[in-house]
Amino acid sequence: MVKYPSGSSAAYRKAAEEPKIRKKYTHRENVNFSDRGMNLEQMINESNKFYRIKEIAVVHKKPTPIQIVKVDYPKRSRAVIKEAYFRQESTTDYNGVYQGYYLDFEAKETKNKTNFPLKNFHEHQIIHLEQCLKQKGICFTIIGFTVLNRYFVTPASKIIEAWWDKDKSSVTLKEVEKWSIEIKSGFQPTLPYLKAVDHFIADRKLNNGK
Amino acid sequence: MVKYPSGSSAAYRKAAEEPKIRKKYTHRENVNFSDRGMNLEQMINESNKFYRIKEIAVVHKKPTPIQIVKVDYPKRSRAVIKEAYFRQESTTDYNGVYQGYYLDFEAKETKNKTNFPLKNFHEHQIIHLEQCLKQKGICFTIIGFTVLNRYFVTPASKIIEAWWDKDKSSVTLKEVEKWSIEIKSGFQPTLPYLKAVDHFIADRKLNNGK
Repeated sequence: MVKYPSGSSAAYRKAAEEPKIRKKYTHRENVNFSDRGMNLEQMINESNKFYRIKEIAVVHKKPTPIQIVKVDYPKRSRAVIKEAYFRQESTTDYNGVYQGYYLDFEAKETKNKTNFPLKNFHEHQIIHLEQCLKQKGICFTIIGFTVLNRYFVTPASKIIEAWWDKDKSSVTLKEVEKWSIEIKSGFQPTLPYLKAVDHFIADRKLNNGK
Repeated sequence: MVKYPSGSSAAYRKAAEEPKIRKKYTHRENVNFSDRGMNLEQMINESNKFYRIKEIAVVHKKPTPIQIVKVDYPKRSRAVIKEAYFRQESTTDYNGVYQGYYLDFEAKETKNKTNFPLKNFHEHQIIHLEQCLKQKGICFTIIGFTVLNRYFVTPASKIIEAWWDKDKSSVTLKEVEKWSIEIKSGFQPTLPYLKAVDHFIADRKLNNGK
């Protein structure tokens, strides 16, 4: 018997009912009602919830690391953090497990239409992806060209290589297209990125990588 | 070329030099100088740093999830969080990747000498471990009997079963001994828990589980 953390299941049911209402606002042919104005992070979080509830994969976004300095404990109410600072992250934002495989990825979006600036990825994220690749994790990035409503799942190795290239400050949309598996945003899940992961796993099996 | 996040490598060298100083304070035979008065979380964090630097595994403790309400941005200094609250966690504290395997675990310590109270594990942790087991992750707990200086790596399945058993409020040390692989605290790494993971992987291969 699996009991879901309180709220998850209800929240999921609520999400499932939403498109019935939203559908009537779809007035342009190329507008995908399913992403409902969500940003990339929200799309991935919703997809992860869907994958978790359906027992397809367990992937979570990591919380932002905070250095807590001062906490008040008011009587009869919960603790209030009164002074804290953002800490440097040392990993990517997302990791989890899918059919025995370790997944690790970072997601970034841009309003650009023709290229993706590499400064969006930070050194600690690149290094973490390198470390996880050495441990045979399935590592990738999800790049969203939001104005184009196009989403790409790119093997981390390609982004790492471009990132360390001193002559490169961005990768072109053409490069991203060549290296990646494009994922169409949909309804359930909002961003079915595991379709791309299935390709990576199939490639790995072909190459006898595992 | 791997560049470590700033500080890690230096911090590691610093730790490596420490025992030379510490050794002379070891005056009781059963005192293990190597754990240096660390609690279980510190021992695991040090071990993870060692495993990461040696490129043996990539395991991190997840940050505590915080709901941020108010942030000040003082001129010429970094942002200060002025109001925030602790949020309910939805996973265990640790996860990562080791030789292609997904690792997920929770660590708890007790001052008891004969039993470990199951209330130390929370429902969301038990459910998360169940979900990860279904995805073929290698899931376990690290239980420290601190007064005894004994540390056990226990397959999550055993703890999950005991946790759901309404007649059980704790597990005995004898049960923990029977179910677990005991890990001796050492110097590098402080708590070599991957030795136990190697056993779990070997068992899995025997049972053709992967």
